[in-house]
Amino acid sequence: MDSIRYVGTQVLTSFLRKRDSTDADPDVPDDEVSDPATEEIFTSWAIFILILLIIGSLWTSYYLQKKRIQAVHETVISIFAGMFVGLIIRVSPGHFIQEHVSFSYSYFFNLLLPPIILNSGYELHQANFFRNLATILTFAFLGTFIAAIVLGIILFIWTAIGLEGINISLLDAISVGAALSATDPVTILSIFNAYKVDPKLYTIIFGESLLNDAICIVMFETAQKFTGEDLRISSFFKGVGMFLMTFTISLLIGTIVGILTALLLKHSHIRRFPQIESCLVLLFAYAAYFFSNGCHMSGIVSLLFCGITLKHYAYYNMSRRTQIAVKYIFQLLAQLSENFIFIYLGLSLFTEVELIFKPILIIVTAVGICVSRYAAVFPLSRLINFVHSKRAAALRIPNHQEEIPPPYQMMLFWAGLRGAVGVALAAGLTGEHASSLKATVLVVVVLTVIVFGGTTARMLEILGIRTGVIEEVGSDDEFDIESNVGKHGRPMNYQDGGNNNDELDISDAESDVSDLPPMSSSQQQSQNVALNNISRPDLSSSSLSGIFSKTAEDPGKWFKEFDDQVLKPVLLDSTPSEDPNPNKR
Amino acid sequence: MDSIRYVGTQVLTSFLRKRDSTDADPDVPDDEVSDPATEEIFTSWAIFILILLIIGSLWTSYYLQKKRIQAVHETVISIFAGMFVGLIIRVSPGHFIQEHVSFSYSYFFNLLLPPIILNSGYELHQANFFRNLATILTFAFLGTFIAAIVLGIILFIWTAIGLEGINISLLDAISVGAALSATDPVTILSIFNAYKVDPKLYTIIFGESLLNDAICIVMFETAQKFTGEDLRISSFFKGVGMFLMTFTISLLIGTIVGILTALLLKHSHIRRFPQIESCLVLLFAYAAYFFSNGCHMSGIVSLLFCGITLKHYAYYNMSRRTQIAVKYIFQLLAQLSENFIFIYLGLSLFTEVELIFKPILIIVTAVGICVSRYAAVFPLSRLINFVHSKRAAALRIPNHQEEIPPPYQMMLFWAGLRGAVGVALAAGLTGEHASSLKATVLVVVVLTVIVFGGTTARMLEILGIRTGVIEEVGSDDEFDIESNVGKHGRPMNYQDGGNNNDELDISDAESDVSDLPPMSSSQQQSQNVALNNISRPDLSSSSLSGIFSKTAEDPGKWFKEFDDQVLKPVLLDSTPSEDPNPNKR
Repeated sequence: MDSIRYVGTQVLTSFLRKRDSTDADPDVPDDEVSDPATEEIFTSWAIFILILLIIGSLWTSYYLQKKRIQAVHETVISIFAGMFVGLIIRVSPGHFIQEHVSFSYSYFFNLLLPPIILNSGYELHQANFFRNLATILTFAFLGTFIAAIVLGIILFIWTAIGLEGINISLLDAISVGAALSATDPVTILSIFNAYKVDPKLYTIIFGESLLNDAICIVMFETAQKFTGEDLRISSFFKGVGMFLMTFTISLLIGTIVGILTALLLKHSHIRRFPQIESCLVLLFAYAAYFFSNGCHMSGIVSLLFCGITLKHYAYYNMSRRTQIAVKYIFQLLAQLSENFIFIYLGLSLFTEVELIFKPILIIVTAVGICVSRYAAVFPLSRLINFVHSKRAAALRIPNHQEEIPPPYQMMLFWAGLRGAVGVALAAGLTGEHASSLKATVLVVVVLTVIVFGGTTARMLEILGIRTGVIEEVGSDDEFDIESNVGKHGRPMNYQDGGNNNDELDISDAESDVSDLPPMSSSQQQSQNVALNNISRPDLSSSSLSGIFSKTAEDPGKWFKEFDDQVLKPVLLDSTPSEDPNPNKR
Repeated sequence: MDSIRYVGTQVLTSFLRKRDSTDADPDVPDDEVSDPATEEIFTSWAIFILILLIIGSLWTSYYLQKKRIQAVHETVISIFAGMFVGLIIRVSPGHFIQEHVSFSYSYFFNLLLPPIILNSGYELHQANFFRNLATILTFAFLGTFIAAIVLGIILFIWTAIGLEGINISLLDAISVGAALSATDPVTILSIFNAYKVDPKLYTIIFGESLLNDAICIVMFETAQKFTGEDLRISSFFKGVGMFLMTFTISLLIGTIVGILTALLLKHSHIRRFPQIESCLVLLFAYAAYFFSNGCHMSGIVSLLFCGITLKHYAYYNMSRRTQIAVKYIFQLLAQLSENFIFIYLGLSLFTEVELIFKPILIIVTAVGICVSRYAAVFPLSRLINFVHSKRAAALRIPNHQEEIPPPYQMMLFWAGLRGAVGVALAAGLTGEHASSLKATVLVVVVLTVIVFGGTTARMLEILGIRTGVIEEVGSDDEFDIESNVGKHGRPMNYQDGGNNNDELDISDAESDVSDLPPMSSSQQQSQNVALNNISRPDLSSSSLSGIFSKTAEDPGKWFKEFDDQVLKPVLLDSTPSEDPNPNKR
């Protein structure tokens, strides 16, 4: 029994920071712990068990996907697997293990989160993202801000009533609000992928939850900087200023690193050595992250925009092998990190000894996050629809459809699962009532994943949202490979969700440009001659002029135009002049 | 200046285990170190600098490869980059950093080595490996054993003379001998790749250095188990018995995990979810490693054979996407680990405070490793040639060529670079003179990499070894992709080195079977129907019966026959009965 418990301890301590290594427990003999050879063996067993846990989660997930059971998702399984192990640790005699577990804030942010964020940025479907940019930004910035403030105020008022003996400052309340406003894309998006939900809804939810993680992190950190200061009206504006500055500089760092990578790849022959190239792309992304952190900025924001920039520009300068390799590596790292995080979330529910669970506070917070998300989603949707109809009237185009119809609004509300980012942020809370607040955040996050995650599939049916949208032009590498190898379309489990036949009135020509289709054979041949055995997709800009006249109503138009005419020729290797039929324009 | 030094410290301490965390240095104020926020920032800078170092090494390596400067190799650059940083740390005032650096044995074996070994096992060209199996096993087992014993005796005699006041036990001498017999494949093989050296020589050196790492580790650990015991004649046999047991059980663990993975992939539909599949393959391999370590066996041996088995069986049951993803991920992890290891080796040359450099002992050891490798390579080559000619005479086939001609023998001798495995093993040495021995091993390893690594390209020319061998049938994924995408053969930097037109008198038909060529279009079509959208290469066994009559002289024949007729039909998804033309046999 002792050895099992010791192994369990090692599972945790080998991955998590020991809270207090000098605080030896009398239950476990000292010599057992101190012998390095024995410790080595136990660590091996510990990691082995952890690997088995992840294998178990993945396998169950596969089984459920195979049986098309969408109600129970991989993340929910991981949480339950973690809770199961946590429960075993909890009920075993002694408190040695429990006392040695605590959430390692820096470990989470430096090791587990980066692959997920980088992958998200990289996987983002660029065309859909920029097409819905205005909507996404509105929800991400304004929505998150509203949600955080509303939840903060609810919590502040509740604790001010003083029923549970907790009295937190407004600053802490808003910090918790910020932490609990970070929605998690993982669960919801894999359900959407499986169901092939309408790409517009998909993109809005993906874009929002992606940006809002970054925004919540910056908001939380900004709020924490005011700890100990007196709050005035000016503090609010100072906070907003600091937030905007941090966000902008972080964004710039990420974008600049991405652009530098693109230029480096363009102006060197490194693509002839694809192994080195793949390593460099990965290292550059991580360099952006750590540089940004080192500059007191937000590494996550930098990494996100570095990923987006890499995909938008550098991707087209890479060798084919690197394109595929980088994509797969990002995906694999992200998937392993996600599983580990959710296993850990479940685990810490039972093993975190510091946590103080206040049932009523938890219920109030759970209601609060629904209220705050409601307060963010529905008014902003109305605003967006209003602007949309006004613009349609001004441009005299038929406004045959609302920008965000009511079922989409409801789904946006329902998609507000909270994830590990919130828990990790809450771990940074300090002060008297930190333990209660951490416990509250953890329970609420697990609840949202189980409740909202478990009911999303049903909700899609109830709301009658269009599903089963068939991918016509897949811009995804794996499909390219598949189609080249033998037209083996693999219908499920793709992450991109990009789709061109959505309901907007934008011409197919635009999709062609922004999706950057794989080379045709004639393009390939011309490239074979020109580029000395290097394969890269070409930018077919033959119908560019036609697009600009048609996309006057597109809010992302200014960027697309600038991008196509200035940035892409500078940054990409295959400029429009290399187009096989430039004279047809 | 203090902050720079602090950053340097963090570079090291964040990656390496602090030798003694209670041993605070008066130079650095305590509050600077203890503030977690500041520490976080410095850690970020530290990792950032480390990433820059790796980027620098990779970039220089690219530049050298581009300029076709083969004399200076990536590993040599990494070592010098590390030495440069180490020198800066050394000459900066104070000893804070130096005192906090030590080689973390467990860190190296659990984090850095596994990807390299796994990748090597996975990259192994199966057909060439099994064709030269007898030769490779002879060098790996007998050769390593001879080299370790000879070097051990040389060291023992030298220290017994007592010129430098060192007096080590025979056991320690043999341990050092074992540590310094682990040859490193990284440098030599990338040079061979660039020059496209004759695949037979390539395979022998690759196979030998791969197996011999594992053998040295087991030998070293076996020797260390006798520490403190009286050495008797029986100890020798006990040691050999323990060695063989550990090696065999580890081999079995790895092979069984590989076979289980193959069966799991065969009998499930997980290939429809390639993301999960890739994660599972990686996790299974690591599970084998940690399980083997947990059972007091050699994880490295298990991992190596798990990698070989995965490639030999499981590979053909994977989806196309997983085949590619796993390959690229293994390669990338291995490359990053290699670069980090060599940077670290250079670094520790200047920063390891514990090391005691004994110049004469170093010279004696450097001469000793040459003598011991000479004693292993040349007699065994003669033995192999003798057996080869005898067998040729017995089977009445023309012995028109020696198995290992003299230039190949010389190259085998020259390829005996020592690598990080030796240093990591030496870090496990204990006792009075451990510091001197560790220093000696470190310096000798760096010397061999610089001297032998730097002269290999020239040596190839001097010996007149056939280079520029053109790959005719590439069995490598990336070539398949390339050829599908647009026949973009990328001539350099491939790791496989597999080649079918070697000088042995083996029919092409055999190569066809063992190389498992990519599917022809007719095979693809039949598979498309049969396998429900899953792409896997098929086993073309149409000429099996013809092979067996021709390969009577092949030492690996028994295995190949058993493999083709029993194992592959059981383990692979596409059995010979699915062959498009089974009636032609």
